[in-house]
Amino acid sequence: MKKFTVLYALLLSTAALADEGMWTFDNPPVKQLEEKYHFTPTKEWLDHVRLSSVRLNDGGSGSFVSPSGLLLTNHHVARGQLQKNSTAEHNYIRDGFYAAAPADEMKSPDLEVNVLQSMENVTTRVQSSVQPSMDEKAAFAARKDAIAAIERESTQKTGLRSDVITLYQGGEYWLYCYKKYTDVRLVFAPEQQIAFFGGDPDNFTYPRYDLDMAIFRVYENGQPIHSDNYLKWNAKGAGDNELVFVSGNPGSTQRLDTMAQLTMERDTVEPNVLKMLNSRIAAMQAYSARGEEQARQAGSLIFGLQNSRKAYQGRYEGLLDKNLIAKKQQEEDDFHTKVMANPEWAKEYGAAWGEIAEATRKSAARMKTQFFARPDSTLAGLALQVVRYVAEIKKPDGERLPGFHDSQLESLKFQLASRAPVYPELEIARLTASLQLGMQELGATDPHIAAILQGRAPAEAAKDLVSGTKLADPAFRKQLMEGGPSAVDASTDPMIVMARRIDPIGRADIKWLEDNVQSVTQRAGEKLGKARFLVYGKSTYPDATFTLRLSYGAVKGFPMNGTVAPYKTTMFGLYDRSASFDNATNWYLPSRWKEGRDKLNLNTPMDFVSTNDIIGGNSGSPVINRNAEIVGLIFDGNIESLPGDFAYESEKNRAVAVHTGAMVEALRKLYGAGSLADELEGTRGGSTN
Amino acid sequence: MKKFTVLYALLLSTAALADEGMWTFDNPPVKQLEEKYHFTPTKEWLDHVRLSSVRLNDGGSGSFVSPSGLLLTNHHVARGQLQKNSTAEHNYIRDGFYAAAPADEMKSPDLEVNVLQSMENVTTRVQSSVQPSMDEKAAFAARKDAIAAIERESTQKTGLRSDVITLYQGGEYWLYCYKKYTDVRLVFAPEQQIAFFGGDPDNFTYPRYDLDMAIFRVYENGQPIHSDNYLKWNAKGAGDNELVFVSGNPGSTQRLDTMAQLTMERDTVEPNVLKMLNSRIAAMQAYSARGEEQARQAGSLIFGLQNSRKAYQGRYEGLLDKNLIAKKQQEEDDFHTKVMANPEWAKEYGAAWGEIAEATRKSAARMKTQFFARPDSTLAGLALQVVRYVAEIKKPDGERLPGFHDSQLESLKFQLASRAPVYPELEIARLTASLQLGMQELGATDPHIAAILQGRAPAEAAKDLVSGTKLADPAFRKQLMEGGPSAVDASTDPMIVMARRIDPIGRADIKWLEDNVQSVTQRAGEKLGKARFLVYGKSTYPDATFTLRLSYGAVKGFPMNGTVAPYKTTMFGLYDRSASFDNATNWYLPSRWKEGRDKLNLNTPMDFVSTNDIIGGNSGSPVINRNAEIVGLIFDGNIESLPGDFAYESEKNRAVAVHTGAMVEALRKLYGAGSLADELEGTRGGSTN
Repeated sequence: MKKFTVLYALLLSTAALADEGMWTFDNPPVKQLEEKYHFTPTKEWLDHVRLSSVRLNDGGSGSFVSPSGLLLTNHHVARGQLQKNSTAEHNYIRDGFYAAAPADEMKSPDLEVNVLQSMENVTTRVQSSVQPSMDEKAAFAARKDAIAAIERESTQKTGLRSDVITLYQGGEYWLYCYKKYTDVRLVFAPEQQIAFFGGDPDNFTYPRYDLDMAIFRVYENGQPIHSDNYLKWNAKGAGDNELVFVSGNPGSTQRLDTMAQLTMERDTVEPNVLKMLNSRIAAMQAYSARGEEQARQAGSLIFGLQNSRKAYQGRYEGLLDKNLIAKKQQEEDDFHTKVMANPEWAKEYGAAWGEIAEATRKSAARMKTQFFARPDSTLAGLALQVVRYVAEIKKPDGERLPGFHDSQLESLKFQLASRAPVYPELEIARLTASLQLGMQELGATDPHIAAILQGRAPAEAAKDLVSGTKLADPAFRKQLMEGGPSAVDASTDPMIVMARRIDPIGRADIKWLEDNVQSVTQRAGEKLGKARFLVYGKSTYPDATFTLRLSYGAVKGFPMNGTVAPYKTTMFGLYDRSASFDNATNWYLPSRWKEGRDKLNLNTPMDFVSTNDIIGGNSGSPVINRNAEIVGLIFDGNIESLPGDFAYESEKNRAVAVHTGAMVEALRKLYGAGSLADELEGTRGGSTN
Repeated sequence: MKKFTVLYALLLSTAALADEGMWTFDNPPVKQLEEKYHFTPTKEWLDHVRLSSVRLNDGGSGSFVSPSGLLLTNHHVARGQLQKNSTAEHNYIRDGFYAAAPADEMKSPDLEVNVLQSMENVTTRVQSSVQPSMDEKAAFAARKDAIAAIERESTQKTGLRSDVITLYQGGEYWLYCYKKYTDVRLVFAPEQQIAFFGGDPDNFTYPRYDLDMAIFRVYENGQPIHSDNYLKWNAKGAGDNELVFVSGNPGSTQRLDTMAQLTMERDTVEPNVLKMLNSRIAAMQAYSARGEEQARQAGSLIFGLQNSRKAYQGRYEGLLDKNLIAKKQQEEDDFHTKVMANPEWAKEYGAAWGEIAEATRKSAARMKTQFFARPDSTLAGLALQVVRYVAEIKKPDGERLPGFHDSQLESLKFQLASRAPVYPELEIARLTASLQLGMQELGATDPHIAAILQGRAPAEAAKDLVSGTKLADPAFRKQLMEGGPSAVDASTDPMIVMARRIDPIGRADIKWLEDNVQSVTQRAGEKLGKARFLVYGKSTYPDATFTLRLSYGAVKGFPMNGTVAPYKTTMFGLYDRSASFDNATNWYLPSRWKEGRDKLNLNTPMDFVSTNDIIGGNSGSPVINRNAEIVGLIFDGNIESLPGDFAYESEKNRAVAVHTGAMVEALRKLYGAGSLADELEGTRGGSTN
């Protein structure tokens, strides 16, 4: 315990300098880096890292790791594309994939990746679009219109994907312009069993022994791209306590939420999300139990649902933790007290907390609709997108529904053109289960549910809708989109007919939410954002928004279960954990690993942890050292990190990464992918030169 | 999380049949074993297991594992004897020990081991010694007298070590007769670094990778003993979920304590014990820092102190856990309600809770004296024992202080004759630190402290006492004991003089405690013991008393840190954990293990866990299967088991054992001890036949 006391004391003494924050590249934590790590990133360093970082619009991050467009990310980020390219005959998820020759590199059906080219502060333009005389609804519309205009102008001017993002709850607005790539080909993926070794039980835990990696190559005009903006490979990795950075796209955090919002999250959102996830998982597991091919089809869905469940369970437990809640309350009290102590600030911003609380209360009362009214079905989703597409593009840009603005249309059309397979029986199972849950939670007379069921039982309705529709065919979708409102209105496709029925109900819901909740919280949030700058300056970082962020930290173990978790694991540990479970269930080894054991140097580091502050969406992010060399690949957070949505806790919160050494060791020794390893290590120019 | 839900559900469904209890061999849990495991131990099975089990009076357990007296226990149980046999030149703790030939087997300085030969219920005789007219003090003396008489008679009749033990807080008294062995020779011990791999941080945790074993051979009349009562070796070990038993000597539990006692434990005992342990550890670490030889001398002390600290920290956290306290309160409420519902019981036993609460309150007020008044010094302890010995043996047996009864004298004299080395500088450091802490906690005017210091500073007093005494010499101690009161009274040895000064103060403390606390709690405890039998029958087990107990359970992993801990670990894991910490500090490997890696089958199971209910004192106990074959060697509990002093929690409480397979694999492949492994595995008759 002495060691622990010392350890705790050390941790406490640095608490004031915890490695917290997901910092925007315009405002890196220069002061903290200097004070704690004696490192100052240059502009060139920041630009190089930013341009080497990639956002994968499937929901993850990645980085360029060769001059010829090699893109490193997680297996679990690439999983969706692997699933879409797999068939009953070619199960790339189970078996892995390696393109030894350029011609074998496998095109992804619908993967768009983005590289952040520029960032421009447009706060003044957005905020000044709102006149003092406007009420909340008018202000909401004005902001929306201003944002759409900025995005549209930028798209027209630059040809780049242009997104205006809201930071600090409206304290700032920024125009982010992205270079967009849609020809992204798979070069390598290992077997899922080694990428996700330990399965759902080990997910979000550490020590860990996963090779959660996949490598794509990015093409443009049919050729691999070439760029100096890539991260040099460092197979030695980072040492204990070494400074490392993570550059990636954390999806969403709620650290600046008010107590009213957190309470609603705990009491309403979390329990309902978990109920929905449990129902969907049960339905997909029942479907999988029908046979091997069904299990293959449902694999990625189950993976994603279980992943969400474990994450939400951890968030929920965080919110149930009295210490966390006390800390958040203290933060809010401090902020509120400081605002109210200044009469001018009090007058301008003091009402914001109450306004948010009132809007939150209203939204909680209608929360179940959000979780249980929507049909869970790829085809139903496509139908609604088609129906709305033809209507929305007729409207002025600023008045459209989210997702249908001019600047977004190209990406949307790319998604709708996907040739990813749709499995009718799987669709029926999903749709049936979600309609059953909807009936149970909302009742059969709920307008959404009634509009879908039309008096039928859930299973019957699902079967009618799925078996009657042609929407699985991208050509059919294209035809409807190009045919416009008249083609959609005339369609007798049952899924389109259903979508036409639920469209107005859903629009009314969106309108209600905008008028009663979003317009209020947006305006109040902007007040709090401005107040926060006045009280604390810009010394902090904004909540995550699935945009590029830099986090810093040290490679470091943590106190765990009565002892300490080491900063890294080794390949020995992989074989230990497998044998410890008699190679059963979630811990069996792919035959390549089982039989190839003696080829490996088992001392090779496998995974490692660092204090970097990350969250879902950071999956696939590079871990880099101060020379901007890549030393690891983020793929998870430990179980203690799950409340990180709401607060960063420096003692035990850890990011989990695959070690660069494990990747090249496996590529060379087990996968016969020496030429790929050579390309990564820069010992030759790349296989496609 | 689905898997977890299922797992939790399974665990909950068996909660009613949790593998709880440290059962006496006269009352094994036959019903539970039949219902849950469909196994019924025969009388022969129970007798064989009992006679194969050994108590080591250093504070642990063991078992016979060959017909020629091989005694298997833990390295950490043998550690004290290893320390006593080590010198600056021969560091057996660091380097290990192996006697390849019988003549090399190394005699232990002061190790007595006991085998339980018979058990007799003497409740009636003890309880009937108390007349209804007696007050508490008279009753206390009467019981003490009756017990001493029973022990004395039995010793005289059988020649066996005879102890009357109190079970169920006085609900029962039993006479346990032991065959006693004092010629116990070391055959094998590995390096401490592999026995205690992971050090204090990994202590009381799992997964674990320790070879915490040592092998003695028991001699009688200069020859190895021979007996059929030994456990056959099963190197295959036990499988997942297999029924296993632990037969050993759990030291002490407080599961039948009242809430008043638990509250005192939490608020007074635990904080003071931790304060004392922290002070002693700091003193010994400072001493160790003086040099390698000092570190060697203090090694076992630090090991024991750190072990206690971690155990007490876990107990303390258990008592601070609101769920545990609520459970205990519920148990007490149920018991109390049932007693009070019967007017006769209420009259007879209803006052007991209040009486215990009052005595506990009194004892808490004087608690600091117990922890901070006693000098921490081997020599001071010896001095006090000698001073008291010559006085006590003059008195009638029943009136003597605990430890000086006729039946105990032989073991006491064996201890006092120990030739274990005493290191003066170490003694000075210990004594100084304890006197400093005593001054700090009790003040310089405390009678104990003042009597020791005699106006000197702690360091000065300690130096005077230690450097002036000859008590390190067993011959000098013998001379004083044989010289009787006149020799002791005439002695000018400063440690004896000091002991003469503190003896009456200590006796007054003991008297106060007997009159005000023990006599009350003994009588009230007896009431509760009787009441418990009336309310619940004898369906339960008594608290642990460092006497032989049988616990049952299944080999089974447990939910841990967001995932599950496997039921076993393997040698792969040892190399992983070492490499994960860069082979540093607590996780380096002895060179034999580092260099011998390729000789080992790394798939060999190393440690494993089971649901058996154990506690300190069980260290070294055999884990046996239903055929009474040994499959493992208990050496620890997981961190979740530490509140087990107060309550058994079936979901996560696990006993940790060394796997029999690991022991023979290491003996054969790394230690060149094939002949010893052969003897264990029964493939030959034993090296000393």
